[in-house]
Amino acid sequence: MARPPTPLRSLVVRVADELRARIESGELSAGTRMPSVRQLARDRRISPFSAAEIYNALVAAAVLEARPGSGYFVPSRPPTAVTGTSGADFPADSVWERRREASGRHIQVDAGCGWLPDDWLYADGVRAALRAVARQSPLRLEGYGNPLGLTELRAHVARLLDLRAIAAREDQIVLTQGASQALDLVVRECLAPGELAIVEDPGYPPLFELLRYRGVQMLALPRTAGGPDTEVLAQLLKRHRVRCLFTNTTLHNPTGTTTTLASAHRILELADRHDLTIIEDDIFADLATRTPATLASLDELQRVIYISSFSKTLSPALRAGYLAAARPLVQRLARTKVMTCLGSSELLEQVVLQVLTRGQYRRHLKRLQDRLAGAHARVVPGLESRGVELAFRPLSGLFLWARLPSGDSVGKLWRRALNRDVLLAPGELFRPDARATAHWRFNIAQCDAPALHGFLDSL
Amino acid sequence: MARPPTPLRSLVVRVADELRARIESGELSAGTRMPSVRQLARDRRISPFSAAEIYNALVAAAVLEARPGSGYFVPSRPPTAVTGTSGADFPADSVWERRREASGRHIQVDAGCGWLPDDWLYADGVRAALRAVARQSPLRLEGYGNPLGLTELRAHVARLLDLRAIAAREDQIVLTQGASQALDLVVRECLAPGELAIVEDPGYPPLFELLRYRGVQMLALPRTAGGPDTEVLAQLLKRHRVRCLFTNTTLHNPTGTTTTLASAHRILELADRHDLTIIEDDIFADLATRTPATLASLDELQRVIYISSFSKTLSPALRAGYLAAARPLVQRLARTKVMTCLGSSELLEQVVLQVLTRGQYRRHLKRLQDRLAGAHARVVPGLESRGVELAFRPLSGLFLWARLPSGDSVGKLWRRALNRDVLLAPGELFRPDARATAHWRFNIAQCDAPALHGFLDSL
Repeated sequence: MARPPTPLRSLVVRVADELRARIESGELSAGTRMPSVRQLARDRRISPFSAAEIYNALVAAAVLEARPGSGYFVPSRPPTAVTGTSGADFPADSVWERRREASGRHIQVDAGCGWLPDDWLYADGVRAALRAVARQSPLRLEGYGNPLGLTELRAHVARLLDLRAIAAREDQIVLTQGASQALDLVVRECLAPGELAIVEDPGYPPLFELLRYRGVQMLALPRTAGGPDTEVLAQLLKRHRVRCLFTNTTLHNPTGTTTTLASAHRILELADRHDLTIIEDDIFADLATRTPATLASLDELQRVIYISSFSKTLSPALRAGYLAAARPLVQRLARTKVMTCLGSSELLEQVVLQVLTRGQYRRHLKRLQDRLAGAHARVVPGLESRGVELAFRPLSGLFLWARLPSGDSVGKLWRRALNRDVLLAPGELFRPDARATAHWRFNIAQCDAPALHGFLDSL
Repeated sequence: MARPPTPLRSLVVRVADELRARIESGELSAGTRMPSVRQLARDRRISPFSAAEIYNALVAAAVLEARPGSGYFVPSRPPTAVTGTSGADFPADSVWERRREASGRHIQVDAGCGWLPDDWLYADGVRAALRAVARQSPLRLEGYGNPLGLTELRAHVARLLDLRAIAAREDQIVLTQGASQALDLVVRECLAPGELAIVEDPGYPPLFELLRYRGVQMLALPRTAGGPDTEVLAQLLKRHRVRCLFTNTTLHNPTGTTTTLASAHRILELADRHDLTIIEDDIFADLATRTPATLASLDELQRVIYISSFSKTLSPALRAGYLAAARPLVQRLARTKVMTCLGSSELLEQVVLQVLTRGQYRRHLKRLQDRLAGAHARVVPGLESRGVELAFRPLSGLFLWARLPSGDSVGKLWRRALNRDVLLAPGELFRPDARATAHWRFNIAQCDAPALHGFLDSL
């Protein structure tokens, strides 16, 4: 009963490409209302599903605008901050594509990746925790557990948050599959298609993908040395009805900067005046040597949803994260969590709890922070002596945001590095509009490497 | 900086309740187009977000219909199969609400729950697997792993599928957080709001919630002793443009029935004629003593997406499931998976792989099947001797679908049982339209219990 692959797919792609070309050429002018899904389906003899899929893809690419209840429109203005003039010769339009192009190659130096090397992580702690859980009696395997996640781990997270001056009870905490699932839950529950959200520029690419997938329009907020640019934030909020702001507070990805107390205070003032929900993604908090001020601690989780995880200190392979928020919102988010995955893995959460409570964890953290500080002290001079220009001077954390000493195009540089088995992360991946930039993200823990130095020396 | 809770929430609830009342009373008649989101926001002085939220909630409750690109409408016909005349005195409109009402009580017998008791699961196997992973050197903790999930576990799943006569290569398999995340990925990727999907009646409640949340309209397909009613399926497909069919093949939840080979063949014929995608949720396959025919094995994963998990044989607390599908679709689903959670837990997947490959697993499965057969032999006569009437006679699996020997209302019976610390699962929870039914779901592994017998004897 095998069937040949359907030729429909190529028809759908053709229709999507044609519409995109007509919009981008200006043939369909700004403000034009597109045919309804059903009309498009009839005109092109495709299914309504395929027609809806085409429009979704064009909305996701910001070529069309969805207005709930009104239809699909050619954007009537160049969107204020998010205009797309992508670096034309660079083929990777997303982290996914970048991974694909590089996959199958032997990469010696993953200079711009988002994680710590294997031997910086806490293998001994995870091993001991696995053994401790194996000894538990009874080993709790029944049912889907608490919708919020393992109660004891939530109680422990509440204590960790208390150390960050964030008062949250265990029933205000939802355990998630990494910070990513927390972001996904928030985007699904707090933003409707067509709504506006402010994101940092540069910022976190998977967040941009999530928002595009949801049909949310993004406004770009530049990142400065002291956090989000609050002047631009004030202007954006004056001009637009914005629902949510997403921001990294501590050791921001990809710039390494940390939001100052004064900026945090100003952001909350503006949020209050404009009834803005803030999603504070603070997954790098434990890499900081001093406890930084968070928006959540100032605001007491009134309009801030606080997200963090153990991916940067234990291991990303655990997929253990959490969010904290006001109680009614937590109920809604937990309900969405149950609907989409029935519950998180309480077995895994037992392992995480064991890692965190087995005494050596604070020592591991201290060692990790020291090691990062040491890497900064070695890597920064090594890069600068080779002409790399840092945009900011973070003292800790994983990332540097920097220019290369070359006038070559981003695509050319990326491929030259790849030919030396060095994988670079071009800055445009981290921009909500994918606009070209001469900056690149470097991972401080991966850059003390001869192959990278060789590449830089060749420029 | 603490603020009083916003009074907006209650305004939103009031507007939603008022609209619902006007629709349900007939004041807003069938076919009426509702004001646009922006219009509603202006009229009621609420934010567009709140207005969108109100419409989303009413669509989710099937009070309104969303037509992409056209707006929100009062449903213009009583939807063929899914009409809502919910058992008015029963307060639980979802599994979530049921859990909430019963939470905090000591439940002796969870007579209708969906999982196996703790001591039926494979604690020894999980313990040994945790220890085996703890011994691994190196313990792979770096990065987010393969977007599809741990390669070695996918290769093992491919071998398991081969035993079920389903030919799938490891690059056709995506590992997920239980079957639930697999369903969520498929609903998000394969169905657009306003599209139609066929679901089984009775069927799986979290699936109904997922589809409502996505704005997908459901058509109910009755379940018979031999699987979905193919006559009704033919009629539904003749009358409607349906995108997807969701079905349980083996030991269906909640009826315990298994789709016959002839039904499977007929379903695929119809799917072919009407270009239908089939999502085959086969999470009970390993509880069957004989390998049943699956839609996926007949169709060779052309138009069938096959979903299963280890929740029913290892433990639901692992959250380990998977899907198998045609390769282009797998790429799309994996991309959505990465976007929404970056990746599944490869540490957990190492544990699952160890459980499955450590020799004793086949013996555990056999013991579990025998124990279920034994429970059937004891529980069925125990229930029938107390007047319980079975709708079907499954020989294995977890579930029975049955009537109680009482004319009392569902709500009254449910509370009477709860007063004896017995938690029952009313049949209407398992119906896509929540329509009243005299049937209840019983879990064969939980029902050999004096408290349940006492309740039944009291009727």
